[in-house]
Amino acid sequence: MKMKGSSIFTYDVYAPTTVTTMLRPRRQEGQAIIQEGFTIEPPVPFSEYIDIYGNLCQRAVLPVGHVTISTEVQAQVNPLKPIPDPKPAYMLVGDLPEDVMHFILPSRYCQSDLHEINMLALEIAGNLTPGYDQVEAIRTWIHQNVRYQYGFTDASTTAFDTARSRVGVCRDFTHLAIALCRNLCIPTRMTVGYLDKLKEMDLHAWFEVFIGGDWYTFDAVQEKTEGYRIEIAHGRDAADVAMVTQYGNAALQSLHVAVDLLEN
Amino acid sequence: MKMKGSSIFTYDVYAPTTVTTMLRPRRQEGQAIIQEGFTIEPPVPFSEYIDIYGNLCQRAVLPVGHVTISTEVQAQVNPLKPIPDPKPAYMLVGDLPEDVMHFILPSRYCQSDLHEINMLALEIAGNLTPGYDQVEAIRTWIHQNVRYQYGFTDASTTAFDTARSRVGVCRDFTHLAIALCRNLCIPTRMTVGYLDKLKEMDLHAWFEVFIGGDWYTFDAVQEKTEGYRIEIAHGRDAADVAMVTQYGNAALQSLHVAVDLLEN
Amino acid sequence: MKMKGSSIFTYDVYAPTTVTTMLRPRRQEGQAIIQEGFTIEPPVPFSEYIDIYGNLCQRAVLPVGHVTISTEVQAQVNPLKPIPDPKPAYMLVGDLPEDVMHFILPSRYCQSDLHEINMLALEIAGNLTPGYDQVEAIRTWIHQNVRYQYGFTDASTTAFDTARSRVGVCRDFTHLAIALCRNLCIPTRMTVGYLDKLKEMDLHAWFEVFIGGDWYTFDAVQEKTEGYRIEIAHGRDAADVAMVTQYGNAALQSLHVAVDLLEN
Amino acid sequence: MKMKGSSIFTYDVYAPTTVTTMLRPRRQEGQAIIQEGFTIEPPVPFSEYIDIYGNLCQRAVLPVGHVTISTEVQAQVNPLKPIPDPKPAYMLVGDLPEDVMHFILPSRYCQSDLHEINMLALEIAGNLTPGYDQVEAIRTWIHQNVRYQYGFTDASTTAFDTARSRVGVCRDFTHLAIALCRNLCIPTRMTVGYLDKLKEMDLHAWFEVFIGGDWYTFDAVQEKTEGYRIEIAHGRDAADVAMVTQYGNAALQSLHVAVDLLEN
Repeated sequence: MKMKGSSIFTYDVYAPTTVTTMLRPRRQEGQAIIQEGFTIEPPVPFSEYIDIYGNLCQRAVLPVGHVTISTEVQAQVNPLKPIPDPKPAYMLVGDLPEDVMHFILPSRYCQSDLHEINMLALEIAGNLTPGYDQVEAIRTWIHQNVRYQYGFTDASTTAFDTARSRVGVCRDFTHLAIALCRNLCIPTRMTVGYLDKLKEMDLHAWFEVFIGGDWYTFDAVQEKTEGYRIEIAHGRDAADVAMVTQYGNAALQSLHVAVDLLEN
Repeated sequence: MKMKGSSIFTYDVYAPTTVTTMLRPRRQEGQAIIQEGFTIEPPVPFSEYIDIYGNLCQRAVLPVGHVTISTEVQAQVNPLKPIPDPKPAYMLVGDLPEDVMHFILPSRYCQSDLHEINMLALEIAGNLTPGYDQVEAIRTWIHQNVRYQYGFTDASTTAFDTARSRVGVCRDFTHLAIALCRNLCIPTRMTVGYLDKLKEMDLHAWFEVFIGGDWYTFDAVQEKTEGYRIEIAHGRDAADVAMVTQYGNAALQSLHVAVDLLEN
Repeated sequence: MKMKGSSIFTYDVYAPTTVTTMLRPRRQEGQAIIQEGFTIEPPVPFSEYIDIYGNLCQRAVLPVGHVTISTEVQAQVNPLKPIPDPKPAYMLVGDLPEDVMHFILPSRYCQSDLHEINMLALEIAGNLTPGYDQVEAIRTWIHQNVRYQYGFTDASTTAFDTARSRVGVCRDFTHLAIALCRNLCIPTRMTVGYLDKLKEMDLHAWFEVFIGGDWYTFDAVQEKTEGYRIEIAHGRDAADVAMVTQYGNAALQSLHVAVDLLEN
Repeated sequence: MKMKGSSIFTYDVYAPTTVTTMLRPRRQEGQAIIQEGFTIEPPVPFSEYIDIYGNLCQRAVLPVGHVTISTEVQAQVNPLKPIPDPKPAYMLVGDLPEDVMHFILPSRYCQSDLHEINMLALEIAGNLTPGYDQVEAIRTWIHQNVRYQYGFTDASTTAFDTARSRVGVCRDFTHLAIALCRNLCIPTRMTVGYLDKLKEMDLHAWFEVFIGGDWYTFDAVQEKTEGYRIEIAHGRDAADVAMVTQYGNAALQSLHVAVDLLEN
């Protein structure tokens, strides 16, 4: 499916402000990037690098005044990898590939090592077949038990907080899912990007889980994981995949996101 | 200086237990590894890999019963890199090398993004010359204001907790220092290994800071950062450099650590 | 300077043919990619990955018939890094950063270990100050002693061949320069991309040399290294940075390259 | 199987000579390193790093005089991975994992792109089932048609040379096998290390081939690939895995290698 995504961030910058951004698509299997662009207005120099997770990262110093950062991407994307039958099984920690071991560790917003997280993971998934069934039960539980609401949580809200408050947005749903899965020793990472069919158009966050020898996509915000996606970045949690991080005095005035499916 | 370190972990294992360990020395500038070994008794197979930070990691399944994991290393180590004069300066985020950007992000135990951490960082170092002076002020403040005491904190204690409780061990001192430095946008990582001159002989944790274009060693447990060290692992915080992580039912019975300086 | 490059490859494909390409710009310091695209006509799926050198690589299976691969890029590029005074010095092998060590090794088309290459390197640069002066002497010698001529060399021509024949194109000039510099233990890599001011418009190859602690650009085809460049890929030699590699039965019918400097 | 390997290099050094060495065991699946050491006599500082292939590399400046470099390793090693039935199949280039793509490229001593190599590969394996059968036919052909003889080849001998001369040592056998396999688009790498059962005790070189989704060991020197091995380094060819590279004036006086199988 050919898919298009774009986002425009508008800032009022009060003092020259360094920003790091992750706003361009990842280069990977399953999404063929046909066209993509990144512009800052007024134009300022920016530099790029590839981080430890393979994400494309940009750095710039925004000048004082009204500044927009615009990105757009057109990609040919695969449908979601179907869940095979029999369902992907749990892999013992000793059998996991080396490069996924990183994703069973606790992280800033996903405190998978806490007792409360363990209690909740066991309550939701303790009696299920290890692997896919556990992950899907966690995803469904969050979808049904956490209320989707803007404005309740902020950038410092963690999985532990959401396990208690049971309110949040896609980022919080995802953090809680990650913490619960990792508590069961299932490698899990956060992915951000574009999703078609999102009700309120925005950049989105979901999670990917390594079971049965492969990564699968899960989305706790949706009733059922579905839709075409363009991945922008993945990492341990929101600390790794912040779309814009600012070091200075600037205020985000607006964010416009558009996602379209084009002819196949 | 020729230096020797060894550690012996003794476990009672109640069910076959997978462990991952980081107990062998890093291969890097400044420490020439002359001899090193790693043995599990009774002997079981183990495998090794190199993680995202260049740490050597081991995995094994411990059998039921009494199990010891023993490691030892002999290395020729450099003295601590001296602090040049003028002192290493703060580098703007926009000027940092790509590969240190990872170490200004908040992490599991170092919530550098929290308001309370920001308040404390500004209180300690807000009026100082950015760079070395800030880091040394943070280190000194922690040494003077946090009480070194075993048993008060545990594996889930964070920098935020220690900022409040002001009690902890080397791990907690280090986490707090990392959170405070990162809050000032100074790349900081946790390092674990052997230190000579430690009063109660144990494996030790300290922090390294990227200022003036290079990494420097700081130790908040010591009155003054000093002593020869063998580095075993480094990463964002204790989540990345856990010396032994166990997935199963086993109890650590004892840990013996020895560090000796040999003839130069 | 804002700069635009594009290339269109046209193939007649006689049997389904897998191709790997390196045709998109590198993401790095010094070139800010504003817009870039990659299309295959008729459209076929392609996948992407990032290789060991940080180059973006694409893979696709070209269908039978007439196929075009088109790419274009708009970037804000820095001028060439100026050569400081005093000139960048030779670094002892023992002092080189770890990640440049790879680029003193001989490679497929740059047999820096051969006696003939050593003789020529000593003849050209043996009496000069180690470092920049040697590299510039090698560059100038090649420019003056190797005749630029299409059709004489092919994809299997090596630096050793060119040292004898003294005829070739940008690829051959570059391979010979690399072999000679590496013979003097100077880390050197091949870079391919767009250069403005090229007489016959084409994709171009040049070399980068690590002296005095940094990478500098050199071009043996030019009388004097100059012009704005967009880097597409770098590696040890043409084996690493082949713009299109085909595994199957297809014939390149035409290649059109355009490079423009836009308003600053 | 518990296995022990050691090597002692003796040099007469006429001027301070920088050396880079790869003499310590790789850290990887299938070989558990129990004990290992590296010493230079007289003692001089050395530093270590991990190269692009995960090999441990050492650097030192050898002082004038008589110098020995000694290494030893004890490891628990797995038997050779058995060849499954049905035999591991050929994978299309488009289906290969990203990280093995590097190993289908031609390299310094393995000119898999040459016409003569292609002719020979087709002659040996052109009519066979793509995959394992081709690799084993190449291995057997080399074993039967290349004469094992010391002193005929040197450090600059390539696969192309050996295809003509049909004389060489383990390094030459391996280079020819790699060039032929890569010509058939089969990812192949060179591995060096210790092999038990070698008639004249020496460090040894063999090749590993990626077929059917996994790496398998092949040895063209042996009548049948067999024996326990400790891997020290792997890479594209001998340029990447040179056990000792010297930059200066020093002469190797002797090399003693010992390999022993210990009780299981």
